[in-house]
Amino acid sequence: MKLVIVGGVAGGASAAARARRLSEDARIVLFERGPDLSFANCGLPYYIGGEITDRDKLLVAKPALLRDRFRLDLRPRTDVEAIDRARKVVRVRSLAEGRVYEETYDKLILATGAAPLRPPIPGIDLPGIHTLRSLGDTDRIKAAIDRGVARAVMVGAGFIGLELVENLVRRGVATTLLELQDQVLPPLDKEMTAPIAAALRAHGVALRLSESAEAFEPDGDGLAVRTKSGQRLPADLIILGIGVRPESGLAAAAGLAVGPRGGIQVDPHLRTSDPDIYAVGDVLEVPDYVTGAPTQVPLAGPANRQGRIAADHIFGRDSRYRGTQGTAILRIFEMAAAMTGISEKLLVRAGRPYQKVYVHPTQHAGYYPGARPMTIKLLFEPGRGTILGAQIVGEEGVETRIDVLAMALQARMTIFDLEEAELAYSPQFGSAKDAVNMAGFVAGGVARGDYAQVHVEDLPALVREPSMMLVDVRMRTEYDGGAIPGAVNIPIDELRERLDALPPGRRLIIYCQAGQRGYVATRLLRQLGHDAANLSGGYKMYRMSHPDR
Amino acid sequence: MKLVIVGGVAGGASAAARARRLSEDARIVLFERGPDLSFANCGLPYYIGGEITDRDKLLVAKPALLRDRFRLDLRPRTDVEAIDRARKVVRVRSLAEGRVYEETYDKLILATGAAPLRPPIPGIDLPGIHTLRSLGDTDRIKAAIDRGVARAVMVGAGFIGLELVENLVRRGVATTLLELQDQVLPPLDKEMTAPIAAALRAHGVALRLSESAEAFEPDGDGLAVRTKSGQRLPADLIILGIGVRPESGLAAAAGLAVGPRGGIQVDPHLRTSDPDIYAVGDVLEVPDYVTGAPTQVPLAGPANRQGRIAADHIFGRDSRYRGTQGTAILRIFEMAAAMTGISEKLLVRAGRPYQKVYVHPTQHAGYYPGARPMTIKLLFEPGRGTILGAQIVGEEGVETRIDVLAMALQARMTIFDLEEAELAYSPQFGSAKDAVNMAGFVAGGVARGDYAQVHVEDLPALVREPSMMLVDVRMRTEYDGGAIPGAVNIPIDELRERLDALPPGRRLIIYCQAGQRGYVATRLLRQLGHDAANLSGGYKMYRMSHPDR
Repeated sequence: MKLVIVGGVAGGASAAARARRLSEDARIVLFERGPDLSFANCGLPYYIGGEITDRDKLLVAKPALLRDRFRLDLRPRTDVEAIDRARKVVRVRSLAEGRVYEETYDKLILATGAAPLRPPIPGIDLPGIHTLRSLGDTDRIKAAIDRGVARAVMVGAGFIGLELVENLVRRGVATTLLELQDQVLPPLDKEMTAPIAAALRAHGVALRLSESAEAFEPDGDGLAVRTKSGQRLPADLIILGIGVRPESGLAAAAGLAVGPRGGIQVDPHLRTSDPDIYAVGDVLEVPDYVTGAPTQVPLAGPANRQGRIAADHIFGRDSRYRGTQGTAILRIFEMAAAMTGISEKLLVRAGRPYQKVYVHPTQHAGYYPGARPMTIKLLFEPGRGTILGAQIVGEEGVETRIDVLAMALQARMTIFDLEEAELAYSPQFGSAKDAVNMAGFVAGGVARGDYAQVHVEDLPALVREPSMMLVDVRMRTEYDGGAIPGAVNIPIDELRERLDALPPGRRLIIYCQAGQRGYVATRLLRQLGHDAANLSGGYKMYRMSHPDR
Repeated sequence: MKLVIVGGVAGGASAAARARRLSEDARIVLFERGPDLSFANCGLPYYIGGEITDRDKLLVAKPALLRDRFRLDLRPRTDVEAIDRARKVVRVRSLAEGRVYEETYDKLILATGAAPLRPPIPGIDLPGIHTLRSLGDTDRIKAAIDRGVARAVMVGAGFIGLELVENLVRRGVATTLLELQDQVLPPLDKEMTAPIAAALRAHGVALRLSESAEAFEPDGDGLAVRTKSGQRLPADLIILGIGVRPESGLAAAAGLAVGPRGGIQVDPHLRTSDPDIYAVGDVLEVPDYVTGAPTQVPLAGPANRQGRIAADHIFGRDSRYRGTQGTAILRIFEMAAAMTGISEKLLVRAGRPYQKVYVHPTQHAGYYPGARPMTIKLLFEPGRGTILGAQIVGEEGVETRIDVLAMALQARMTIFDLEEAELAYSPQFGSAKDAVNMAGFVAGGVARGDYAQVHVEDLPALVREPSMMLVDVRMRTEYDGGAIPGAVNIPIDELRERLDALPPGRRLIIYCQAGQRGYVATRLLRQLGHDAANLSGGYKMYRMSHPDR
């Protein structure tokens, strides 16, 4: 067996190591266009920022190890230019020597990854405009900052963009962040990103939403960005992080099936339309685990799993890829934001029915020092209650709950299973009713029809109903500190005594700070015959949805 | 509906609040023998140690809130002495006034908890010998330390015992810890507790395993413990934490079914043998979620869930309790130890077939500063690979992985599902191949027969086989720093060149530091025709199993 792998980073390197563990006598050739194999893409921003000080640490598996332990035939700085499927050879060009030669294969794995988008904006090719993919890119950006960068513009507020912004701030660079959409972290739903936008602003980042770069131009010794809204932003350094496109040109030229958005199409064994050619990693189109629809999710975890699965199948195993959930997490300053499964906006776009709840539990027992609230958004199927997606933002314990919910989603568990989850509780790590249980309780109550809920986005229409009455059941001091316009304040513990303040026949919309007192009040009022509904996530959710008020 | 609840802490208070949310017109009477309702048992050691400074915070729900928000008829300092099931009344004694009266019920919930064991050791009733259950106990222990305690003896190294020891050390008290068993944290398997024992000793705790108190006696102004081994340990303060027994006397006297170990027996709706009487919390016998066998697991999380389920069923819902996994976590100094599901020793006792693996992954990417190893022990069913239990010990990220594994166990997922888990990865929080994936990969490899493994406890028998050869594949420097007696050192990356050092026909037992290089070497040697097996968890596991060598 001669296995040829094109691309030596996450998916390609994983496939190579797995192949060797499965077969000592296979010949395994690993081509990589760049100089570096098996490096830690996700660590690059932190080397720029100085948290990772040793560049060598970014090489996950050193070439010597790949050669000695896994006996791989490593060919860095080598570009695979064409695949001749009929003859089962690839044509390669050694970038160091310029030599072009052919290499035969029995099986071929394409792990060519995805390239950062560089749209044809005027001035895009000026020096000083960077993207971040390779160690070389990293060195160039770091060298620029080391030489002295006063002002930077980051274009794109996705995961990599925010990681870079954090590290630019860490290096003392005054940073402007442009994002075409009206929110940071576009994979998340907008309201969940408000605390992240606030954290960015609190750390001095000039955040410009609904804004984009129209042109880049020289400006003295540096550059300037001309924006859609007509601003001109001088900058010593510009980084683009507006997305990636699969590097599927090699595959397409060889006639392999490629999806409408450029991802190579594969079967569950990660085999392309040619049974001797597999593809793994960011170059793929994969099934969304929730919807089954094809999607492209450039993430390191799935790429690694895919490398393993392709090697397995090549060596006779029945391994299958189950699809990608899109589990992702970001630390940004003191905050973390995470998601798994599908977002609300994609559910809306797909026309798929769903319900949602918001809760704001703490990461551990409130009586123990250091309790911090997080916000969990849980999306689930009406009726059965199957979990469709979750998003979490907060300071502490976010990673634990998103991982728990990722497992629940993998197992196709329901919100009712979350009610019954038995998670680890000690005062430092959890609560007798964990954050995940709380999300389950609230969702379960909604699904069982225990109480009606409304969402912040329903309020404008509700306010127009003459019978509607908005009741703030928080304490007077909380109400005085800020409330939803038009709300009357009846603290929950006075509710039974002040029922005369609630005329019959009114539609009562109840809210508290986080949702829990509103829930208790709603239950009470409904049992007393009122038409009452609770605002999910309470005033806190109202604030997250109206961050500028 | 008149609902009477006996016991007002975790399970009882949860049941009462849930009952009110389900019914505004129910009458709900909550009896509690002690003065305090709804307090945070799990926080008590940290109030003694001073991490929690505000005693008021230990009251999770204040009486005023329970009265005003949930309209509960609270009766603290009231002992329920008898149940007359025929007349549906309880006889109660007000401990404040001495008055005895009867209270009728439609439905009764017993949440009487479990009492710390006080075995009939000579001197057990001397002043200065404490147990920890109530706020009053807490106040007494704290007052003693505030007055000045130089030396303390903690009897029992279970969860509460270790939490108390940590806090005694924090208060500057020289502490001796006696444990009858030959390990700390008896619910865990012994080898997994070695790092905890080491941490205790490193923090100055005089840990005496396989040791117990035979007598307590006065000693000057203080006390002394006479131990089984004949030692005499002076102490100003003695605390017993050797276990609890269900307070099921009231139930038993009323003729309700009680299990052999004293737990009240209930159906899945938590109904006792009398359909109008329910029981919740530490007083219960519950099904073990893995084996289905009856067990007693005094934990706050399950007690809270049970309270909710009993109230649900009383008010006409079909809620069921699925059993207890025994998910638990402990922080002890810089370490954490956690478990979910069944332990190996209980599997052995039950005669149930199982396989196990050990891995030592880090909590996040190794290239990012602060990576710390944890040890995961995973127990699973041979063949299908269903997860039976997991134990983790380490400094960071333990809570996340035990919660992920607790969800996997709840969903009856397999080790193969762990291989496919898509968990959150960024350098601060995880790895492209998460710790849980690693456990899954290793277990999956074993289950699929990719390679043979042996365990540390197999070594004594293996060493007696003349054909056995123990091969240490670590680097020379690692080998020189300590190795398993009798091992020859052939570093993994020299293995292919030194195959002549491995005579044919030998049974090769391979090990490295943590298991991964040993795995790669084992795969290689087996493909070259050798009979090779890997030592699971490597030299690190050998050290954990032989902590005193």
